[in-house]
Order: sequence, then structure tokens, then C-alpha cells
Amino acid sequence: MWGGRFAAGPSAIMREINASIPFDKALWRQDIQASKAHARMLGKAGIVSEADSQTILNGLDRIAAEYESDGVPEDWDLEDIHMTVEARLTEMIGPVAGRLHTARSRNDQVATDFKLWVRDALDRASAGLLALQRALVTRADEHAAAIMPGFTHLQTAQPVTLGHHLMAYYEMARRDVARFSAARERLDECPLGSAALAGTGFAIDRDATAGELGFAAPTRNSLDAVSDRDFAMDYLMAASQCAIHLSRLAEEMIIWASQPYGFVRMPDTLSTGSSIMPQKKNPDAAELVRGHTGRIIGCTTALMVTMKGLPLAYSKDMQDDKPPAFEAAGLLELCLAAMTGMIEGCTFNTERMRAAAELGYATATDLADWLVREADIPFREAHHITGAAVKMAEAKGVALDALSLDDLRGIDERIDERIFAALSVDASAASRNSYGGTAPDQVRARVAEAASQLGIAL
Amino acid sequence: MWGGRFAAGPSAIMREINASIPFDKALWRQDIQASKAHARMLGKAGIVSEADSQTILNGLDRIAAEYESDGVPEDWDLEDIHMTVEARLTEMIGPVAGRLHTARSRNDQVATDFKLWVRDALDRASAGLLALQRALVTRADEHAAAIMPGFTHLQTAQPVTLGHHLMAYYEMARRDVARFSAARERLDECPLGSAALAGTGFAIDRDATAGELGFAAPTRNSLDAVSDRDFAMDYLMAASQCAIHLSRLAEEMIIWASQPYGFVRMPDTLSTGSSIMPQKKNPDAAELVRGHTGRIIGCTTALMVTMKGLPLAYSKDMQDDKPPAFEAAGLLELCLAAMTGMIEGCTFNTERMRAAAELGYATATDLADWLVREADIPFREAHHITGAAVKMAEAKGVALDALSLDDLRGIDERIDERIFAALSVDASAASRNSYGGTAPDQVRARVAEAASQLGIAL
Amino acid sequence: MWGGRFAAGPSAIMREINASIPFDKALWRQDIQASKAHARMLGKAGIVSEADSQTILNGLDRIAAEYESDGVPEDWDLEDIHMTVEARLTEMIGPVAGRLHTARSRNDQVATDFKLWVRDALDRASAGLLALQRALVTRADEHAAAIMPGFTHLQTAQPVTLGHHLMAYYEMARRDVARFSAARERLDECPLGSAALAGTGFAIDRDATAGELGFAAPTRNSLDAVSDRDFAMDYLMAASQCAIHLSRLAEEMIIWASQPYGFVRMPDTLSTGSSIMPQKKNPDAAELVRGHTGRIIGCTTALMVTMKGLPLAYSKDMQDDKPPAFEAAGLLELCLAAMTGMIEGCTFNTERMRAAAELGYATATDLADWLVREADIPFREAHHITGAAVKMAEAKGVALDALSLDDLRGIDERIDERIFAALSVDASAASRNSYGGTAPDQVRARVAEAASQLGIAL
Amino acid sequence: MWGGRFAAGPSAIMREINASIPFDKALWRQDIQASKAHARMLGKAGIVSEADSQTILNGLDRIAAEYESDGVPEDWDLEDIHMTVEARLTEMIGPVAGRLHTARSRNDQVATDFKLWVRDALDRASAGLLALQRALVTRADEHAAAIMPGFTHLQTAQPVTLGHHLMAYYEMARRDVARFSAARERLDECPLGSAALAGTGFAIDRDATAGELGFAAPTRNSLDAVSDRDFAMDYLMAASQCAIHLSRLAEEMIIWASQPYGFVRMPDTLSTGSSIMPQKKNPDAAELVRGHTGRIIGCTTALMVTMKGLPLAYSKDMQDDKPPAFEAAGLLELCLAAMTGMIEGCTFNTERMRAAAELGYATATDLADWLVREADIPFREAHHITGAAVKMAEAKGVALDALSLDDLRGIDERIDERIFAALSVDASAASRNSYGGTAPDQVRARVAEAASQLGIAL
Repeated sequence: MWGGRFAAGPSAIMREINASIPFDKALWRQDIQASKAHARMLGKAGIVSEADSQTILNGLDRIAAEYESDGVPEDWDLEDIHMTVEARLTEMIGPVAGRLHTARSRNDQVATDFKLWVRDALDRASAGLLALQRALVTRADEHAAAIMPGFTHLQTAQPVTLGHHLMAYYEMARRDVARFSAARERLDECPLGSAALAGTGFAIDRDATAGELGFAAPTRNSLDAVSDRDFAMDYLMAASQCAIHLSRLAEEMIIWASQPYGFVRMPDTLSTGSSIMPQKKNPDAAELVRGHTGRIIGCTTALMVTMKGLPLAYSKDMQDDKPPAFEAAGLLELCLAAMTGMIEGCTFNTERMRAAAELGYATATDLADWLVREADIPFREAHHITGAAVKMAEAKGVALDALSLDDLRGIDERIDERIFAALSVDASAASRNSYGGTAPDQVRARVAEAASQLGIAL
Repeated sequence: MWGGRFAAGPSAIMREINASIPFDKALWRQDIQASKAHARMLGKAGIVSEADSQTILNGLDRIAAEYESDGVPEDWDLEDIHMTVEARLTEMIGPVAGRLHTARSRNDQVATDFKLWVRDALDRASAGLLALQRALVTRADEHAAAIMPGFTHLQTAQPVTLGHHLMAYYEMARRDVARFSAARERLDECPLGSAALAGTGFAIDRDATAGELGFAAPTRNSLDAVSDRDFAMDYLMAASQCAIHLSRLAEEMIIWASQPYGFVRMPDTLSTGSSIMPQKKNPDAAELVRGHTGRIIGCTTALMVTMKGLPLAYSKDMQDDKPPAFEAAGLLELCLAAMTGMIEGCTFNTERMRAAAELGYATATDLADWLVREADIPFREAHHITGAAVKMAEAKGVALDALSLDDLRGIDERIDERIFAALSVDASAASRNSYGGTAPDQVRARVAEAASQLGIAL
Repeated sequence: MWGGRFAAGPSAIMREINASIPFDKALWRQDIQASKAHARMLGKAGIVSEADSQTILNGLDRIAAEYESDGVPEDWDLEDIHMTVEARLTEMIGPVAGRLHTARSRNDQVATDFKLWVRDALDRASAGLLALQRALVTRADEHAAAIMPGFTHLQTAQPVTLGHHLMAYYEMARRDVARFSAARERLDECPLGSAALAGTGFAIDRDATAGELGFAAPTRNSLDAVSDRDFAMDYLMAASQCAIHLSRLAEEMIIWASQPYGFVRMPDTLSTGSSIMPQKKNPDAAELVRGHTGRIIGCTTALMVTMKGLPLAYSKDMQDDKPPAFEAAGLLELCLAAMTGMIEGCTFNTERMRAAAELGYATATDLADWLVREADIPFREAHHITGAAVKMAEAKGVALDALSLDDLRGIDERIDERIFAALSVDASAASRNSYGGTAPDQVRARVAEAASQLGIAL
Repeated sequence: MWGGRFAAGPSAIMREINASIPFDKALWRQDIQASKAHARMLGKAGIVSEADSQTILNGLDRIAAEYESDGVPEDWDLEDIHMTVEARLTEMIGPVAGRLHTARSRNDQVATDFKLWVRDALDRASAGLLALQRALVTRADEHAAAIMPGFTHLQTAQPVTLGHHLMAYYEMARRDVARFSAARERLDECPLGSAALAGTGFAIDRDATAGELGFAAPTRNSLDAVSDRDFAMDYLMAASQCAIHLSRLAEEMIIWASQPYGFVRMPDTLSTGSSIMPQKKNPDAAELVRGHTGRIIGCTTALMVTMKGLPLAYSKDMQDDKPPAFEAAGLLELCLAAMTGMIEGCTFNTERMRAAAELGYATATDLADWLVREADIPFREAHHITGAAVKMAEAKGVALDALSLDDLRGIDERIDERIFAALSVDASAASRNSYGGTAPDQVRARVAEAASQLGIAL
């Protein structure tokens, strides 16, 4: 009748489409925590008796203990985690359980539970980023002076140091931390007490519940409070940016690990091998980080699309807010941990990196800069002279610093023997000593600042 | 170290990020089906002995029976469904199990399994659409002449019939069926035998396996065969369009069910009520259809992003192909069934619909058309005359057909008494008798065609 | 050869695919501003002579004047705005123009220009939000006590006030302002001086250029500086959330403007009429706000997808960063202005709103709450009693407060005559006086706070 | 007032947000074409006089000539291309122009115009794909036996031929052609005559207009006809898949062009060089293909989001359908042409490819397969023996085929001298002769089939 899967008719369909317990049971800790704050407040405010309040609190603690040891039962007829907890409470303590729902509604309850969950996810993301930053800074310190080719368009451009390259990702992680932190600040208002949509006539103390749940203040508009999912969107958006950063590093690890590059060897613990090709280390973890980024972006799109055009206040579409947030958080945390493990455990082949940097005339810009600096030639003209020099070197099949001084002076008389000091990859990197440049001294200074901020000794 | 969740270090992370068995166990039927086709072919082609082939086939049947009754065990160390089946086969039949993997690889195996799964999902979607089409046509037949306001910009524009409105969704479903059907045709090539990426040196018979698995032919390029996920993308894209159509109907059901409209009453079986407000029928199922559409779009985005820019042949990112496809299929099938149930079970309040159509000067265009047709006035001029008539009716606070003939002739002399026959909502609808128009006769003709195509008697 | 459009062969294709001047000419002000900062610094640092620096600065000013009056010429051979300006400068001042490119590269130049542009876009969004907030607060103040039905699932749930409803959008706008403001803080580092990717050997003063361009500091890692587009993504993500909020209000305006609701009449200036149906006001502006939200989400998706998986440092893919940002900013600013105009200029039909609230047993919860509060009945039991009362009212075809006391006491003896004070829509709204609730006093308090924060007198 | 840009108030905002002429003027040819079909039909059907019909047709031809030579004037007050054409027609031929709008509306007009435009875009995409396929097949024929490393996880896996690799993209293009072609079939119904939403009372001949415009039939439901944008979505989805395929090839070209690979040298006409590094060829066109894919995906997302949840029939949101379709089509056509040019013009360095294939024990699987085939060892056991051989070769620092027979027999006695014939990269590739495998004979057979299908002589 409805395409085969739903033989039992509309009621079976409704049970399945309506039940959120299969995924929102992940909120059980938050649900009990919020209910306890509400129950305690109801007691203190005299809306229920202190005795009833205490009975409810004890019941909730017993449920928490049950779920902790046995998991949350999944009964579709109870629809969601809120009804599941309340039904169990009623079984335990009888009709007094019914007093818990005074002055609240599932609408403010779910907003509160989910906000608490997202707050934890923000904290886990920040912790994961901190671990990654530590790994990056540690490896950057180790390789502050190791020369590698700096790429633009994946073409060798100028020599940089591996430490500098790793610290670029430290900077991205720094912005990610700031983004998760700003998201945490914006969610710092507690919806509990907004009731169904209009607030309540009971003399509740919203500051008390907000405070107990660790929020700075209660939300200021009850309609907004039950309609708002900005906090989940903020999480997903910050997660997307963070994952995009990780995907860039993953792409590099995959390319660097491929045989023609051979810049990096993945740790055994984060690659799959092949029993047939023991030298092979598939960079599976890096590929999964890159792949998961696609799914995290998909989750973000999903929530944006779902929320677009929804009238106030609560619409059932909003039940589709949790699966994308839960999925993205699980994936992001895994990506952060995997990337941290890779950075900590991989082996950089710095000889191959240096050798690659020495090919490709990566110091041509240094010749041009030398002409500007020492011979006061406008940059664009210096650029053309350099082009002639590289062309000659290419014709002779040698590196730029293997041309003779006569060769170079044949191109432009203003060149003298000091030029050779500028043309090695080490000299090139060392010279780029402007603030934020790739010179090992600059890298070490940035590493030191970062280590100090992270509280790690190097 | 890695943010808390992965205390056991990189190996624990790798186990979790790498294991696909938690989701790809959904492929167990397809995996066994494809392995059986492969084993039978190996035997017939003499690549393994007939006896070994038969031993393997028997073993696979026993595993299928086990999984059918007990489910698929989820051992992360076995990574995926393919290794899970193979390991169990080895336990059962010993080293001969190792012969099954001759001339194939996990890369062509997973492509084959997933393609078989998607093919089934395409068929389930088509079956769901067929059920929906039947419901739409049945209700359209019932209400072929029931007048309702036709909206543009959600403003009353012209009278249409409810049957015509429902048949608009029949047309969308018809295109959806065509889309799923075209996707099925495009996936009709079997990747099995492409091996890891380069084909195989064993003298396999790919036509045989393709044929046994119900494909028209084997794929023509082994690199493409293991890299291709177009078929999953085709499914997701068709699913997105189908869901978008359902979301439009859902939006209308939600608006129509709201009190100021009151056009429809949801079936009890597909709404939630409120124990406190028994007259209330929350259109939860419709809202969930609309919400799920956001998630299906998110799944589609996810796969597009994941596949973009992947080099050939297999990359591990492609393991992220299944979760979006599985999720979207589950949601779409639920949406189709729920919408079918709603259309079948809802109660249309045709009195309120007609009353709404009679407000708002919905027949103004009919006056203009009459002027063109009967008085040979250019349409744009007729438009202006009509504007004056509506303005007068509005000033008098009456409907257009409640103006007197004198009133109308005061505006334009060319109007005569025949005009009144054109100004009722029934006359208006009946007059729009061009092919595909809203006239009940047109609607009935389209319904009859559709019923005949669907093989239903009305 | 290449499908018809590119008869002239690959060179023609390359010119077209490569040229960004058709869109990046929008950056001309920023490009000249950044070049001036760079030229001034080069002079002060003695890298170029003061005279040359001044010649360059004068030339740049003349170019700015030209572009201001005549627009930016679009020559595809000059590829982008940076080469366009530099070529014009060379025409004007000769080879000394070549000194401007000392110690910088197009890579840090475009990052700087684009960041300056995004900073302005963030400011324009904040200004637009401020205007919208003022409009919302002004209208909320006007309608702080006007009763309308509060909806959940688009079903009448409880009476709220129109002022409260509008203030919900004020809260969303408040978070949007915070989001744009946090994005502005995160972009407060200047990439100029990062050169191609590795920094420079010239003794530049990056604090000076950062300071002149209004940034708090220079960026700390040159590779990151030229690879980073987080700032554009931050803009797009904040824009998406803001647009989603506007789309929710737009959806409501569209529904409210439809004839069965009749809650609002759009301002003439922001609707299209119909010459044939003068009473019709199509809410075009609201529909376009809703539609544009789809495109803004699309722009955000585009940039996420483009940046995912890009290796460091600059890749040409990053040229695709600007069209989505430019498009989204243009759309968002239009949406903000249109919505502000709608809120300011629309006419709320508060009589129809109140009448709708009085239907639908919107005060049923108030009966239940009264039972809890006055008769100390557990909420869940009170809920059931209320259900019985509504059922009786529905059977009699009357409103809840039209039941007699006897009727009510027949259902539950604990009800007394005080109940009637709780059952009017005004009493219901007034009673929801918890912090953030819909009671007119609460609304007025929130409006006063907001007005004070916005600096407007009401 | 509204954030600065809209000083003139709501009317200025409305003009800007409402006007679609800045982009829909791209439809002018289609608009005139459809109007001519309508005018001719009105004349033939006697709805307007033959003389009026002819006057209108002549006027439309004159407008077409004007637009062809001078472009379409962009007057925001005329809103869109339909009003722009009609206004010009009225200027030219007076009030008779008003008869053109008989029995149609802007709603069916825009649906028809846009469908005609999309149909052309589908044809252009197919033509672009045809050119790409020809280039691929030509180069594949040239390199049918050229050995390169086949990659999985971007790790060298097994030798394949370059021709086989290129033919994988031919297969993708083949599916893309099928997808565009299926989309063309699905749009083959003409909306003209559906009028505003309900059809018309004039005795129009919809078969005539459908036929003149090259459609198979008129649409069957007027409400659906003006609400449907499936055809644009079909285009965007097919374009996304096509672009994703191109992005994969682009990614490979970028990696192959980077110095450590050196597999390919881009044609001068499709790269940018560096005046300073003449040997450098930035693969800009490939990067832009990859980047544009992000934007095409963004356009697809945009239209999905815009259409989701729209009630019937026409809503103004649907005006946001054209910018994404126009943008995506422009980008896709450029990507197809650029990729065709790259494939035609690039230089493959087949020596480096072969050298890379000879590293990395790419023939290890061949050893295992040999053991299965010649010594009847179960595949999994053969796998382990091979692992030992590779380990020994690695320890000795030699290629697999440089081990002595004694070495190999020390590992497993069943190995004999025939093994060496299996271990060269050429032998390996040649042996994978199963249907669709990489053996040069297979590649040549597939190339020949493709060439015959494309009608090209090789």
C-alpha cells in the first residue's frame, strides 16, 4: 500500500516517522540534568512542595543510575527522551511525577537539553583542537629549519621550512578555537521556563535554573527561545570550517605520502597496509578525514535547509536538528583525534623535501630581490633579468647557483659575487625574516609564543 | 591526548575511523549475492574447481541463513561486511574460502554490492511513488469539481478545482518515476571483475556474473568501475527532487490545516493530538516530511562534496558514500509512505475551500477574458476595465457578480447580461477548458488517463 | 571544437576562464588603499626613496579619481584588478611604478584587498541589522499588548502579543549582530607583507601597513596568510544565518498576508499589485527575501566546497572565492533593507489577529495551569481535566469561557468562579509574566531595554 | 534608514529587489520565439485576427533585430524581459500589441522561455562533452600501451596504461551525456497556454504552440506547469555530476604537473607562466575547473533550497531560479572547453610515468596471481607468499623481478622461471586482459568502439 515497508498502515508509519528516541536518547544526561534544575527550582519557589521536589530529584537520580548502567530503553510509543524519562519517573514515584512538568513544556525542555549537549560538543571540539595544536607546535619546533619546497598551484615556488608549514595549520586551529569559543558565548542563555512558546504564569525563578545549568542568563523572549537553533548552526558552521582546515592538511599528507613525493611516512597505527605490499602504507586516516569533511558540510547544509522559512514558534521539522549535529560532532572529533595522531606519529623525510626544494629554481625570486636591494633596480625590471638567468640555467641543465659569475654578469653587469650567498635554499629561507616569514628564526619565535600560550615546554 | 574520547591512542582512533561495518553491514544480502555469482562463475570457468565452487556456495548460503536469523556480528577488527563474510566463511569451510577472492578485490566487490543496494532503493522509491500516485488520483477523482482558491504568491488568484490541484502533484510524481527509472538504466553495468583497479589476468566470464546479478552488461573500464559512484549520486539527486515535491505538498497541508484556512483535517493516524486541546491535530507527519527534505538535500550535498576532486582509482574517502545514501533512502521511503497515508486519510473541507474561493474577486480575470472574447477588446485594455469594476465592487463591499448590470455598463458599455454567467466560481473553473486546464472535464480526462496508466479502476 | 562558444581555441578559453577582472574590479578601492599603505611604508622604511614613494602615491590617487568618475576598464589581458591598476600606474608614472611591487606579491595583495572588502561588508550587514532592529522595536512597542494567536505547528496554541512576536526577531537580529561582530574580530590581522607565500627579505614594517589599513596586527604566518579565506566563510555563514532568520519572518508575512489569515497588509511600496485585482497585494518582497535565502545558502556551500581539500599555499581555485561573497552580500543587504521597509510600512490587522486567537481554545493551558496553581493538582492530571472541558465546549460549539460554572464543576468539582478570569485571551497573555514571557509588561520591559541599547526614543 | 545603500526608501529597494531584467534579459531570444509561436497560433485559431497576428509577428521580428544589434535595454521599471518586449511592441505597433497577451500570462510565459533556454543549455553541454570525448579517445589511442602507475589511495598499486586511464574519463562523460539526454526527454512538454495557473477559456491550440517550439506535447496540468522547475534542477544536477568528473581529472592534472610527479606538461595556451621562472607552468585552467565545480554545486544547492517547501502555484521566490542556472551553465561550458583544450594540448611525459610504475612493487599482485594460476594455491595464501617476496626485495633494495630464482624458491618452492615473464610492468598490464581491463588490447578495443560511436577516424 505505501510501498512495502509499512504493511501495518499509517499508524506504523507515524510511529516510525515521529519517534525521535532512536537518536535523542543521546540527550539523556542533559534531560535529567535540566529536569533536576527545574525540580529544585519548583521546590524552592514553592510551586511544588519541598518534599515533592525531593522525591522527584531522587527519582531522577535513580533513573540516571539505571541509564548509566543499562542504557536507555527505546520504546517508540514514548516518542522521545523526555517522555521516556517522565514515564519511568511516574512508574517509580507515582503521580507526583506529574508535578515536574509544571511551568515547562517539551518545547523549552528540548531546547535546553540540546543546548547543553551542544555546549559539551563545543568543549570537546576545543579540547581536540588543543591537542592538535600541541602536536603541530611540537613537530614545528623539531623542524623549524628543515627546508621543503613551498608550493603555489602545487608547483615549487620558494623554499620554506617544514616548521613554518606546520605552523600555518596552527594558525587555522587558533581561529577555529576562537570560533568555537564565540559560539559558546552566544549560546549562553537558558531557554528553560519559556514553556510551550509564551512563558508561564507560575512564579518561576529562571535565574536559578539558568545558574544551576551554568548559563549566564535566561533567554529574553519565550517565542525565540523555543524556535531558536542558532546554537546548533553555530556549532555546525564552526565544525565545517575546522574540518575544511583538516581536509587541507589531509590532502597534503596524502600527496606527500605518495611515492613520487615520498615526503612523509604515515604511522603504522593510522594507516592500513597490504599483506602483499609490505612497503605500502595507505593513508586511510587522512583520506577519511577528507571524506568526513564532505559529510560535515552536508550536515551543515541539512540544518540550514531545514530551518529556512520555518514560521514561529515550534515546528516539528525542528526534530531534524539533532541527527546532523550528532553526526557532525562524532565525525569532527574523530577527525581531530586522527589528525593529531598522524601529526604526532608520522615520519617526515626531510632529505627528500630538501632535494625537491633544490630542484625547480625555487630561489629565482631571491635573485630578483637581490637585484632590487643591492642594485636598486625596480622590481619589475629585476624580474625580467632573473627570467633570463633561469632560462640560461635551464638551457645548461644546471641549478641557478651553478651558473658562473661571468654567465650572470653577461646577463646583467650589476650582479657581483655576493649573489651566490643568496641563491642556496637555506640562505633563501633564512633571508625571509620579515614578521611571519619562513626564516627559521621567525618560525622559532612563533613556536615559542604558541608553546607559551598552550602551556607546553619544548 | 586526542581530546578525551580516544584514551587508547591512535590504534583506537584508527579502529573507529576505519571500520565501516557499523553501517555497511546493511549490504550483507548484496555481498553474499555477489559472492555467489562470482563463485559460481569461477567454478564454471574452471578457475576454481567445481567442488570448491560448490563448497563456497554452500558456505555462503549458511552465512546468509545465520545473518537472517541472528543479524550481522559487528567486529571492528574485520573492518567491513566483505571481511566479515569472508572471515566467517573461512571458519566454516577452511582455506578453500581463500579461493573466493581470486580475480576480484574489495574495490570491485564494494562497487557491486553498493550498486545492487542502490538498485533496490530505486525500486522501493518507484513503488512508493506508485502508491502515492494512486492515492492522488483517487482523491482527485473524488474532488474533480470541488472548487478551491488557486493561489499565486499565496494570494487568491483564480478558482481551481481540488482535483486539479492534486493532479499537479501526480505530474511531479510522474517525473520522479521517470527520474528513478532513468537512474536505473544508467546503473545497468556490473563492476564485478574489475578487481582492484586494472582488471584481472584470470579468464573470468564477466557476462556471466553481470547476467546472474541482473545487469545488462559488465562495465567497460576497470578504473572507472571502481571509482564510480554516479549511481549513488543519481539516486540522491532523484530523491532530493522527489522530496522537494513532497515538501511542497507538506507545506500546503500544514497551511491548509491551520485554523484560519481550515481546508483539511489530518487523519488521526498521522497527526499528534494534544490531550489538553482535543480539537487540535498537529500535522506532525507533514512537518517531518518537510524537515526530512532538508536532510535529504544535506545527504546529496555530502556525496557531491566527498566525490569532488578525488583522483582515480579508489580513495578511502569513498567509504563516506554509504551513510548519506542509506540515510536518504530511509527518510525518503518514510516520507513517501507518510504522504500517501495523509492523502488517503485526510478530510478535505470543501465548503471552506469554496467559501475562500468566493472571496477575493477570483473571477476578475474571467471578466477581462469575456471582454476580449465577446467585445474584441485587446487584453491589456480589458484588464483596465476589469480593474475599475473590481474597485467599484470593493467600494460597495460586494462580490463582483453582485454588481448590477447598470453598474457594469457604467464602466464599459460593451458589457451585457451574459457577463453574469461568467462570474461564478463554478463557471470560471468550467470555462478553463483548454488542454491541461482546471475545468472539471479536463481534470476528469487527466484522471482517467492516469488511472488507466496506473491500472486502477475508479 | 570545444562545443561552439570558443571558436578561437584554447587561448580564448584561457582568457575567459582566467580573467577575474569582470568581478574583482569591485575591489578597486581596496586595492588602491592597500597599495597606498604599502607604498608609504616602503618609503618610510627606505626600501624605495621618499620621492618614488610620493610619485606612486600621487599616481594611485589619480587612478582612484579616474575610476571614481569613469569606472574601471575591463581588459581581460590584464587579468585582474591588481594588474589593471599597476598597468595604469606604469602608463602614468613610468618604470618607477615597478617599485610598488617590491616586497609584496599578488597573493598577499588579493588577500588584503578581499579582507578589506569583507570588513566593509560586515559593517554594512551590521548597519542593516541595526535598522531592522529599530523597526522591530518600534512596531513591537506599538503592539506590545495586541493579542494574536501564538502558533506551534502552525496551529493555534496560546495567545501571545504581536509585540512579543516581533521581539523574537529582535533577539535573532541581536545574535546576528554578535555573529558579524565576532567575524570582524577574527579577521583583524593584515596579510600584507606575506608576499607570495614565504614572507620577504626586505626590511618591511608590517605593523605600519596593518595600522594604516585599520587592522590590529599583521598575520603571523605567511603561508597561512595567503591561503586563508576563513574571513569570507565567516561572512557567508553569518549571512546565511541572518538570511534564514529573515526567511522565517518572510514566510510569516506571506502567510499572514494571504486572504484566509488577513493579519497584515503589505506596504504599497514593497508589493506588486494587479491592475485587474486592485485589492491584491502580492508580497513579492517577502517572497524574494525567502528566495534569496536559498541563493545565500548556495553561495556558502560553494565556498565551503571550493576550499575543502586545497593544499597550501595559493591555488587558483581560490579565485572562485569572490563571486559567492559578492553575490551573497548584495542579496543580504537587499533582504535586510526590504524587510526593514516591510516591518516599518506594513499594516497589522490586529482585529483579525485577536479574532483568530479567540478561536481554537487557545486558553486551554490556562485552565490546566489554574488547576495546578489553585487546586494543587499535578500538571498531568490537570491536563486531562482540561481535555474534558474543551471536549464539552467543542460539543456545545462554544468557546471555553462560554461554558457555565456548572458545566465546569461537572467535570471537576475543584473549579470555582475565579476560573473565568483566567480564560480570556487578554488574561491569558497578561498572566504569562515570567521573565521573557508574552505578558505585555514583559514585552514593554524588553522593548525598553532594546530601545535603550539601540539609542532610540519611543 | 535601511543600512545606507537605499537612501530613496522602500520604492528604491523594491525596484532593485523586484527587477529581474538584469539577468533575465538573457532570455530575449526565447521570449520572442515563444511569443511568435503564441501569436501565430492566436491568429490561426481565430482568437485574434490574422492581420493582428501578422502585425504582432512583424513587430516581434523587428524587436529581435534591434536586440541582436544593440542589446536589450535594461529599464528596471519594466521589471523583466517579458514586460520589456511587450512595452517595446506597444511603442512599435500600438494597442494591438495588447492582444498578444490574450490567453497567456507571465507565469506560463516565463516557464516556457526558461525551458527553451535550459533545452539549449542541455544541448551545449552535450556538444561540449562530445568534444571532450573526442579528445580523450584520440589521446587514449595514442597512449594505449603507455605504462603508468595505477593508484589507489594515491599509492602506486598496479601498472595500468595511460590510455586506460583516459578512457575511464570517457566512460564518465558517456554517463554525463546520458544524463543530459534523459533531462532533455523529461522537459519535452510545453507549458505555454497554462496561463496564470488555471488554463484558459480561449480555444487555444496548445499542440500547435508546443509543436512550433519543438516540444513533443503540451504539459498536462496547468498548476504544475507554472510551478515546475524540475527541468532547471535536472540541468543543474547533471551539470554538477559532470563538473565533479572534470574536477577529478583536474585534480590529477594538477598533481601530475607538480615537479615530483612531472607526468604532464600543460599546454602554454592553458597555463600561466612566470616571467621569473620560465620553466614554470601553473595549471591555472585545471585549478579553475576544480574551483568552478564548487560554484556549480553551490548553484545546485541554491535551487534545491529555493524550491523546497514552496506552495503552488507561482511564488516570486521562483525568480531566483535563473541566476544559479545561468551561472552554472556559463561555468560548466567553460570547464568543458578548458578540459578539452588541456587534454588535446598537454604533453604526457611517458618516460616518467613508466619509471614511476617500475618503482613500488606494482607487480606484486601479478606474483600472487601467478601462484594461484600456475600452482593452484588459494589466493589468500598466495598473498602471504608474495608479501614475503616483496619484503626480501625491499631488504635487498631491488625490484621484484631482480630477485634471483633461488631467492624466490627459497620463499616457496612452487615458483619456477616462468615467473619472471609475469613481473615486468608491460607483462603485468598485458596480462590484465579481462573485459574492461587495462591490457593494451582491451584499451584498443574500447577505443575503437568509442571512436566508431563518436564517428571519428583514428
